[in-house]
Amino acid sequence: MNARKQRNLSPRSEEELLELIRKELPSPSRSVLSGIGDDCAVIRHSSKNGVLELLKTDALIEKVHFKTGTPLAQIGWKALCRPLSDIAAMGGTPRHAVITVAAPPSWGSKEWRALYQGIGKAAMAFAVSIVGGETVRSPGPLFLSIAMTGDVPKENLRLRSTARAGDLLCVTGKLGGSFKSGRHLRFTPRLSEGWWLASQHGVTSMMDLSDGLGSDLPKLAKSSSCSFRIVPEAIPLHRACTIQEALTDGEDYELLLSVAPKLWPALQSRFENTFPKLSLTVIGSLLPVFESPTPLPPGHDHLRS
Amino acid sequence: MNARKQRNLSPRSEEELLELIRKELPSPSRSVLSGIGDDCAVIRHSSKNGVLELLKTDALIEKVHFKTGTPLAQIGWKALCRPLSDIAAMGGTPRHAVITVAAPPSWGSKEWRALYQGIGKAAMAFAVSIVGGETVRSPGPLFLSIAMTGDVPKENLRLRSTARAGDLLCVTGKLGGSFKSGRHLRFTPRLSEGWWLASQHGVTSMMDLSDGLGSDLPKLAKSSSCSFRIVPEAIPLHRACTIQEALTDGEDYELLLSVAPKLWPALQSRFENTFPKLSLTVIGSLLPVFESPTPLPPGHDHLRS
Repeated sequence: MNARKQRNLSPRSEEELLELIRKELPSPSRSVLSGIGDDCAVIRHSSKNGVLELLKTDALIEKVHFKTGTPLAQIGWKALCRPLSDIAAMGGTPRHAVITVAAPPSWGSKEWRALYQGIGKAAMAFAVSIVGGETVRSPGPLFLSIAMTGDVPKENLRLRSTARAGDLLCVTGKLGGSFKSGRHLRFTPRLSEGWWLASQHGVTSMMDLSDGLGSDLPKLAKSSSCSFRIVPEAIPLHRACTIQEALTDGEDYELLLSVAPKLWPALQSRFENTFPKLSLTVIGSLLPVFESPTPLPPGHDHLRS
Repeated sequence: MNARKQRNLSPRSEEELLELIRKELPSPSRSVLSGIGDDCAVIRHSSKNGVLELLKTDALIEKVHFKTGTPLAQIGWKALCRPLSDIAAMGGTPRHAVITVAAPPSWGSKEWRALYQGIGKAAMAFAVSIVGGETVRSPGPLFLSIAMTGDVPKENLRLRSTARAGDLLCVTGKLGGSFKSGRHLRFTPRLSEGWWLASQHGVTSMMDLSDGLGSDLPKLAKSSSCSFRIVPEAIPLHRACTIQEALTDGEDYELLLSVAPKLWPALQSRFENTFPKLSLTVIGSLLPVFESPTPLPPGHDHLRS
């Protein structure tokens, strides 16, 4: 490790980098219930009885999150829907957003309008108020950064860290092939489903699937100090997708949740009645931390890629 | 104008671009007291009696806001202090921040650590909790985006739009030469001063000076439907700076405020007692909107530059 430090090696993963960053920052104030490391930060205000605040920031960069030449309205839609998916994963309701766009000097009104049409469509669909932002000319790639606030009744908050060994692992919808099919540009964040699930007894933790199950499930398990076993064949696949793709492609924007096994049958039937078009599938369960987890191929890590 | 549309010309100013963007977005919800167009967005929560929320986002880009090779700890300090200056301009107290960094693939632990040392130092100095963010590898220039929340007692909120014709125009500190002197990398956001000023009767509006008085003063006047007259010779100058530089250099991060003339003498003497090391200087006054404003050279506009 000393040699590593002296040679100024790159942090090997997002996790290692987060560890490094945390050491440089002062401890958050006592109002912060959950800071760096969950889908959103969770903040308690003494003057807001029973309602917690959520705060999330998310960036989209050309050539990293979308190909050059992708229709700008689709980029705008995706940019707003990504943090919405994080708010959904906490059981929250989105409120306000601020948007920073660094665009090439060549952009004219047509480009700006197309981008904001996509943003505006998503803002309308999911009742988010865009309350500010910044526009900059930059010689670099197109860059969008969106910060979003939301709130959640205290009793509905669902973290990654509150699952228990023995809980069932479930996913909404189907996984895999998001990038190649273009679904990553037009997905619907699971806000209604997240809100509903968070209001049900027995849902013990929740997160959104953005980096791929192979990468996201170990994060949830680690946060909850658990191990896990999944049945790869049980993973619901999008058409023409392999299990490998469902584990590693990422950008599914479905919800991963843990459910107390006793409450699963009732939850399953209520979910089917409430959301008849969306599946909720058991793919495995959480285990005590000393058990070996099912080996999984890693999903996406923007630091490694 | 039609020809302009057809030829897809660039918006000629930030203001024109904002107009275009606003048209694409749904109207903000009724909780938004002030959206796009002031230093921060201002939000009312029904459950937070008497306290308003502030939300701000701000970006820093290599070669636009700082030169390549600037020490990373200084960039980190500046990145956090810029939105703090906006919170100060509303009379607010900063609370939480989320930070996105897009860094070149060549960055090792040394670079990440240096950047976050600067951010951490500012977070400690001004009691902001960093509660999340994102780190991405990007082939483009170094890019930082910081979103920050704050709050302000309802009666202390100071907008740009509430000045009245006849009010005196004042600035804190001295202006000009921020970039060439390196002050833009180590300035102190005027949080105590902003908080104090906002708690005083007679301070009718406030904003921070980031683009240069020549650009910022017309924005404040326009927001308040006023014209203005200033005495350029009255502008307090940093050593070796010209009036022209004080008007156009930008990045001063001082406060511009309007004061009811009757209350000025008492305010001035209380300010001197409270902040003996900082000047508060009258530089002109606001006029009815039909009067011609003092002609000013424009300050910085990131869209034009």
